[in-house]
Amino acid sequence: MRTVFWDYDTNEFKMIDQRQLPGTFEVLAYRDHKTVAQAITDMVVRGAPAIGATAGFGLALAGFESASTSTSSLLTDLKAASVTLKAARPTAVNLTWALDRIMGFLSQWESADGEGATPDAIRQKVLEEAQRIADEDVEINKRMAEHGATLIDDGDTVIHHCNTGSLAAVDWGTALGVIHTAWEQGKKIHVLVDETRPRLQGARLTAWELEQYGIPYDIISDNMAGHFLKTGQVQKCFVGSDRTAANGDVANKIGTYMLALAAHDNDVPFYPVVPTSTIDMALAHGGLIPIEERDPEEVLGLQFQGEQVAPEGASARNVAFDVTPARLVTGIVTENGIVYPPFDVNIPKFVNKQ
Amino acid sequence: MRTVFWDYDTNEFKMIDQRQLPGTFEVLAYRDHKTVAQAITDMVVRGAPAIGATAGFGLALAGFESASTSTSSLLTDLKAASVTLKAARPTAVNLTWALDRIMGFLSQWESADGEGATPDAIRQKVLEEAQRIADEDVEINKRMAEHGATLIDDGDTVIHHCNTGSLAAVDWGTALGVIHTAWEQGKKIHVLVDETRPRLQGARLTAWELEQYGIPYDIISDNMAGHFLKTGQVQKCFVGSDRTAANGDVANKIGTYMLALAAHDNDVPFYPVVPTSTIDMALAHGGLIPIEERDPEEVLGLQFQGEQVAPEGASARNVAFDVTPARLVTGIVTENGIVYPPFDVNIPKFVNKQ
Repeated sequence: MRTVFWDYDTNEFKMIDQRQLPGTFEVLAYRDHKTVAQAITDMVVRGAPAIGATAGFGLALAGFESASTSTSSLLTDLKAASVTLKAARPTAVNLTWALDRIMGFLSQWESADGEGATPDAIRQKVLEEAQRIADEDVEINKRMAEHGATLIDDGDTVIHHCNTGSLAAVDWGTALGVIHTAWEQGKKIHVLVDETRPRLQGARLTAWELEQYGIPYDIISDNMAGHFLKTGQVQKCFVGSDRTAANGDVANKIGTYMLALAAHDNDVPFYPVVPTSTIDMALAHGGLIPIEERDPEEVLGLQFQGEQVAPEGASARNVAFDVTPARLVTGIVTENGIVYPPFDVNIPKFVNKQ
Repeated sequence: MRTVFWDYDTNEFKMIDQRQLPGTFEVLAYRDHKTVAQAITDMVVRGAPAIGATAGFGLALAGFESASTSTSSLLTDLKAASVTLKAARPTAVNLTWALDRIMGFLSQWESADGEGATPDAIRQKVLEEAQRIADEDVEINKRMAEHGATLIDDGDTVIHHCNTGSLAAVDWGTALGVIHTAWEQGKKIHVLVDETRPRLQGARLTAWELEQYGIPYDIISDNMAGHFLKTGQVQKCFVGSDRTAANGDVANKIGTYMLALAAHDNDVPFYPVVPTSTIDMALAHGGLIPIEERDPEEVLGLQFQGEQVAPEGASARNVAFDVTPARLVTGIVTENGIVYPPFDVNIPKFVNKQ
């Protein structure tokens, strides 16, 4: 089963509710785009590629929701829905990328009329394009995984941050897809799973996925990675990225920057696994990437062995992403191959390569 | 109230149970050294200075427990108790330091006899020396705090890791003592409190102490420190140390190394606050410091907003300390002043200074 998918029997958009994993496996059904936008904010779905596909299907729902009887007014409704969906999470570029791709695709019918441009035909085209984005995502993930797996040697221990597996994508995943493919190639590997505070996607989702695949792992708290790197117990690090700037600066789940520093300090290669759809060529460097700050309750709402951790009424900050400077990045794995420095020179070649 | 103290009314050793804070404030009473050793392992008490004083009082209990009627057999019992207490936690050097200090002090009566060396007199001397260690700890903390507070400017935001306050010492604390003193001097400061996985001493204990003192703070997950440092929101970092090697390598609570890397990458000063009793001149470098690995359940036993985090039967590693290399340390605050590099040259001067 895919993490996010269109159910053609019921004409509903469906997603695995990742907030309930690993305790409960539940698939939720959606019939309107505003609820989808809220679900993205609430992290029913997370992971850059999965969010992109979700936004596409959310736009398809908006088409079916709209009562417009003219193409131009339907397109206006779709544009409004696109704005709502884009606002759901600010850092992930796939959201914008998927919505802009569909709206751009539709623009050819903006002043068209006739059979191919009826409102119902447009509604169908939105769904088709959303489905295409989802299908391409799986294919792109598989290509990234093949490239990335060449970097993993038999016997390696790798550190992985956050969740970048099937659950973070439509299927297969990015960094965890690389690890999964290396494992399927018969390489004996061990994964150190950063638990990934505050939302604990590593301990909850990555550990759960690795259990399914039978790949050996140990969960560690994020702040232990440095010790394992420094004591020579790790050969490579793989992470995802929510948005990569044109110079190779990588915005990813909070904690990625400190992991990259520790890898660099110990000469351990550090590889973001990044579909080119998440590379934002319009951004010269990572300092321009908007960084989402979320509800402090995600930091404070923790119980340890049954006891509330923080004092009643405690104050907290909750930054969801950070930026890893390109100087700490060994290579960027894309569906078109592995990009090495100088990134400002080489990234454009890989982004434009078909 | 002190964190650990001898109750002269009941002849019991008493400690605040730090495992129950901030939810419940309870003082536990101890009458035998083996239970004290177990309490150190279970982290009823933690923090290098507090553990040192606790070991001293534990040895005093061992004296009163012993039924020996001769001084030499009492000393044998005390030596055995000292071995038990030393084994309670391997990384903190204060444990060994305090016990060796008392045993060394007693050695002058090893072949003595007469009134001053009766078993009862020896029992009393153990308690007196343990009390002296506790009293000196408070005085040393105050001196460190005075030196360290000169490093803090009005308006500073400082990052603090783990708990190094009153609860980590007999009273006042090390790194948090510095922050507390700067605050009492009228400097307006803000503290970013690393929650400090896995035992969450920052979110539980440091936040609780800062609430008591009225010092403004925000709890952050450990992996957020890099973002705040990189975006210019932090002026200094203060941490404790469980054992510092002769070359300035600092063993401290897991996560300290990654914090030091992030501070160094952003030219933010990084100061361990270290009583000279925790400087182990017998160790040439930090690679020789034994690193405690604890029960994986401390990593796995986490609930987030009421839900169990890790999958049932998940595997984890739990390393309690790491070593920060001296090259990442700006200066070491001791009770004898602030030591700057080259540490191998300067540390001996400060350790031996009275």
